Amino acid sequence: MTSTGFYSSLINVDRAIELATSFIRELDIGVEKINVWSGLNRIIAEDIYAERDQPCCLKSYVDGYAVKASDIQGASFSNPVRLFVKGLLKPGESPSKYVLKNGEAVEVYTGSPLPIGSDTVVMYEDVVRDGDYIDVFKTLSVYSNVAQIGEDYRKGDLLVSRRTVLKPQHLAIIASSGLFEISVYEKIRIGLICTGSEVLDKPVNHIDYGVYNSTCILVKNMVEQLGFTEIKYYGTIPDETSIIDKTLSKALSENHVLITCGGAGFSENDVLSRIVDRKGFYVFRGVALRPGKPTSLAILNNKPVFLLSGFPVAAWCGLEAIVIPVIHKLMGVEPAFKPCFKTILKRNVPNVIGYRSYVRVKIYRVKDELYSEPYGLRGSGVLSSLVKTNGFIIIPEDCEGYSEGSIVDTYLY
Amino acid sequence: MTSTGFYSSLINVDRAIELATSFIRELDIGVEKINVWSGLNRIIAEDIYAERDQPCCLKSYVDGYAVKASDIQGASFSNPVRLFVKGLLKPGESPSKYVLKNGEAVEVYTGSPLPIGSDTVVMYEDVVRDGDYIDVFKTLSVYSNVAQIGEDYRKGDLLVSRRTVLKPQHLAIIASSGLFEISVYEKIRIGLICTGSEVLDKPVNHIDYGVYNSTCILVKNMVEQLGFTEIKYYGTIPDETSIIDKTLSKALSENHVLITCGGAGFSENDVLSRIVDRKGFYVFRGVALRPGKPTSLAILNNKPVFLLSGFPVAAWCGLEAIVIPVIHKLMGVEPAFKPCFKTILKRNVPNVIGYRSYVRVKIYRVKDELYSEPYGLRGSGVLSSLVKTNGFIIIPEDCEGYSEGSIVDTYLY
Repeated sequence: MTSTGFYSSLINVDRAIELATSFIRELDIGVEKINVWSGLNRIIAEDIYAERDQPCCLKSYVDGYAVKASDIQGASFSNPVRLFVKGLLKPGESPSKYVLKNGEAVEVYTGSPLPIGSDTVVMYEDVVRDGDYIDVFKTLSVYSNVAQIGEDYRKGDLLVSRRTVLKPQHLAIIASSGLFEISVYEKIRIGLICTGSEVLDKPVNHIDYGVYNSTCILVKNMVEQLGFTEIKYYGTIPDETSIIDKTLSKALSENHVLITCGGAGFSENDVLSRIVDRKGFYVFRGVALRPGKPTSLAILNNKPVFLLSGFPVAAWCGLEAIVIPVIHKLMGVEPAFKPCFKTILKRNVPNVIGYRSYVRVKIYRVKDELYSEPYGLRGSGVLSSLVKTNGFIIIPEDCEGYSEGSIVDTYLY
Repeated sequence: MTSTGFYSSLINVDRAIELATSFIRELDIGVEKINVWSGLNRIIAEDIYAERDQPCCLKSYVDGYAVKASDIQGASFSNPVRLFVKGLLKPGESPSKYVLKNGEAVEVYTGSPLPIGSDTVVMYEDVVRDGDYIDVFKTLSVYSNVAQIGEDYRKGDLLVSRRTVLKPQHLAIIASSGLFEISVYEKIRIGLICTGSEVLDKPVNHIDYGVYNSTCILVKNMVEQLGFTEIKYYGTIPDETSIIDKTLSKALSENHVLITCGGAGFSENDVLSRIVDRKGFYVFRGVALRPGKPTSLAILNNKPVFLLSGFPVAAWCGLEAIVIPVIHKLMGVEPAFKPCFKTILKRNVPNVIGYRSYVRVKIYRVKDELYSEPYGLRGSGVLSSLVKTNGFIIIPEDCEGYSEGSIVDTYLY
């Protein structure tokens, strides 16, 4: 047996994602109506088109006086133009409240429509008011300080496309168009199961040689940060087939997707794997990924079960490299533009050819240069490596590593 | 009067932040105990130190056999070493269950402690089991496949410092140390008030010349994304002194901070400003910021009131440049490392000397190069400029602008 052992036929990360998205056809996520105010990070299930021009009429960007630009050509400090002030037009009032004739002005506030016949607004500070008159000291071109009709969007424009993850600006533009009830995909219900009789979810007086659960809290919060998921944690279940069986059944019936931490290996202790072998099948078992080699995908009851390592850093990498990209693809959602910026590597980092490696790095700035200090590839259980760093670099499968001083693509957590 | 008018003595952004943090001494935020599982994005109010070494004993990173490295020196395919298997040590069991003598091995699973006397683990795939014996085919050095004592952290190590915004990895490392109840700062309660009689918060059949509220939904969600805030929205209140007065009093008593949108100008319509003049004072009124010039800070009832423009893009900029940095400073929290990456500018962008300008850009990649297409500085009401772009560049006060082809520092929303 070669040293690649049980994982001798490991597939690469791209192939794993490809297999996952072809085996899991869809997640069967419903659609629900919600108020736009509660829509942050939800996935919209409809295209949103503008129902009217925005703005719907000329509006003032400033406080001042609506005028005809032609009336104030040549106006200056030494040669002011006097106009008659017909009245005041407040925001929300109709432009037809006043019809401007030559030599006339109407006072307007920020956001006021422009009265009919006007095309420019002179700011307060460029006029002197004198009873019913103003003296204008400035020449302005047409549409100065004016928001033009449809400047933001036109009736019929696509404002937000279906399957967008709604950020504050999307919610704002939907609301601006007068739409308050929107159709979004239900949150993806993700069941999270931890295996391992030695893993503790509650404090105990004397812990002996067990470990406190850190991987599941990491996974739960990373997945929850997506915003369009709802995590249910089923606790740590001991390595006993009957109990795992029961928890799995319940979790499968209550969720769209399961994620498990630990118990995915090849030993007698890995009860989870034996259940998969008996009741379902593996889409892939292990990936050429460092850390995160045990990351696997099984199908049970026609539902996807992602099996992550019990070690926190390996679980993080499996989520980052496989699970989160697959969830985005299944939902037809563009992942957020992840900035990939260049840093100067402070130490050599080796790679094992054939593996994609995620190297945690501390990114820092000295003068105008960004540097990255690698934390090292080793130690998939070393949680402090995620706490002491703030980003990572990815070494592709065909690369033997990077040497100190290389300029590398770097990502933030 | 010069054309800078009412804002003739505008301070710059840095000075505004400085004034804000010196006038608002503290926000008087309490501390509460919560479970670490619900701690995402909260600000921790205590230093967290490790109470024991992690791991607390040698542990196996793999499934296999714990051995003495000295026993298997020289082992190879052609020259295997035979060892007696004394038993199995499961995760959570005590290392003293077995004491290894020369020529002995103990089966271990991933996460198992190493039995006393062993220092190395041979993976399943590097041995052949034969009844109570294994033949080892590989030479390994001491601590191969082994997590060493304190490899993650040592007893007494500072795991997470006070005033850290808790990310998944922080929660995980706190949980790993056996701490489940943590002290965090209460959420900063932020009251949000919209002014403007013409602003609509609910759909109406015929909107005429009013506008639907988009600025407040943008502000609410941007601030909520911080995670350590709790926003209460007081709705749109008409431009009538008595109503604004009453709402302000209520909001001031219920929150640590207020944010208002609109009504901060100098016209008769800007009721809010008149209340500040009567009942409190301005720390600064207007900032040399584009867009977002009206961004102001007042103190009312000893509490900070940030006044933002009613226009969404100007409000966004006021939040990004002033309000959010000030909140971080007041809480003593390091803002998240915001990646600033280099892009090639696709068009000239001018700046008005003395102003700090936030230019929305569409960042995109062509081959290995990142480009940024500016959306233009104009139109603080043009919400679609925030939807069609994905980041921004900042032009400093002393710069006349950037020309096409310049390499510029670029940020993501």
